[in-house]
Amino acid sequence: MPGKLYGVGVGPGDPELLTIKAKRILERADFIAIPKTAADKESTALSIVEGAVEISKEVIELIFPMSFDEKLLEESWRNAVLQIKEKLDSGKDVAFVTLGDPTIYSTYIYIHKTLLDEGYECEIVPGITSFCASAARVGVSLGENKETIAIVPSAYECENLDNILDSFDNIVLMKVSRSLPKLKDILKQKGLWEKAVIISKCGFEDEVIEFDIEKAAESKLSYFTTMIIKKGGIK
Amino acid sequence: MPGKLYGVGVGPGDPELLTIKAKRILERADFIAIPKTAADKESTALSIVEGAVEISKEVIELIFPMSFDEKLLEESWRNAVLQIKEKLDSGKDVAFVTLGDPTIYSTYIYIHKTLLDEGYECEIVPGITSFCASAARVGVSLGENKETIAIVPSAYECENLDNILDSFDNIVLMKVSRSLPKLKDILKQKGLWEKAVIISKCGFEDEVIEFDIEKAAESKLSYFTTMIIKKGGIK
Repeated sequence: MPGKLYGVGVGPGDPELLTIKAKRILERADFIAIPKTAADKESTALSIVEGAVEISKEVIELIFPMSFDEKLLEESWRNAVLQIKEKLDSGKDVAFVTLGDPTIYSTYIYIHKTLLDEGYECEIVPGITSFCASAARVGVSLGENKETIAIVPSAYECENLDNILDSFDNIVLMKVSRSLPKLKDILKQKGLWEKAVIISKCGFEDEVIEFDIEKAAESKLSYFTTMIIKKGGIK
Repeated sequence: MPGKLYGVGVGPGDPELLTIKAKRILERADFIAIPKTAADKESTALSIVEGAVEISKEVIELIFPMSFDEKLLEESWRNAVLQIKEKLDSGKDVAFVTLGDPTIYSTYIYIHKTLLDEGYECEIVPGITSFCASAARVGVSLGENKETIAIVPSAYECENLDNILDSFDNIVLMKVSRSLPKLKDILKQKGLWEKAVIISKCGFEDEVIEFDIEKAAESKLSYFTTMIIKKGGIK
């Protein structure tokens, strides 16, 4: 009988934010599959797992390059699927770890769908999202009562941003560092300037929290930077 | 020195979806505060906690009636704040448990803000949201690549729903059971009929998953029912 694939969300950074289930699956699985952007790079997801689970088993490193080249990406996915299938076919369970939650902008979903279509048993283990951890960190609610929430993964390329900023009560902009200089002007114009907070690398040692968007726009912030805009006020 | 208040998200139902941190805080806190809708009702949050943590300490029951009467609600909040303050003032730590995540439509936020303003130390411990657990359960991603996500807590009363359904890639409608007969027609009209899935009481014994919205609209579903609409297709 083939093994089972688990897509395990490990949360945004703090190892204590793994769920009890994630910990159990990672401890019991025969192999842990770790996504990396390059063979010589550290895996952020692995460092989180190591903070919560003692790993004595074999780790499969899967390379997903930071690229917009679809051919290259497809090749890396196909390669990852093959490596995982080999373990599953030998009856071993594989836990694929992803930052945050596997259903929120993760590379895992493609592998899940492909292997599910091929008849393998696959299960998603949810994780703490970066936006929930960020909101918790700064003590801001993402939604109260009838308030709507918009989540935009890439403000830089969002054609609908103007409409979203106008019509939603709360807006989460993920991976926002590149867009800050542009966003600064839009937010000032819309009077949302003082209703935003920026959280970079939430839960890591080099975490940054910034209520001053002007200052944030001038800083060199990580790729893992989130902005929360709350029309009711962030304080 | 006064004690510390923790707002602890316990996830949507499965006790294994508590985080390691939530478990630690609940085990160490001197008091666990539990929201209930009425004195004689079971607390859903408490039943989740009891599945993961051995509770030998005193539980403070806080009544938040299901009501739209603002005076009544304010009174229940004030009362909850007083009960918690009494424990904090005696140097005891209190863990207030909330379903899902404390920053996503929880009653905890009001208490957090009030006690923070009064100078008490308060911390939010994030939890697994019902929509992430639901998406994981049915193997659907809430967002891929540049896709936007809208979260609407109460479709019945959302004036902007038409615009949201038109302009977002993925839409989460929470507490949707009341709105189903009305939504059915809107979704049919917009061609979103077969791009939606309904998950009711995710992780509980009486969980319902329904890909047929017509059938779902005819069923008597719980208050804890979520619809995920994914324009890229749910399968």
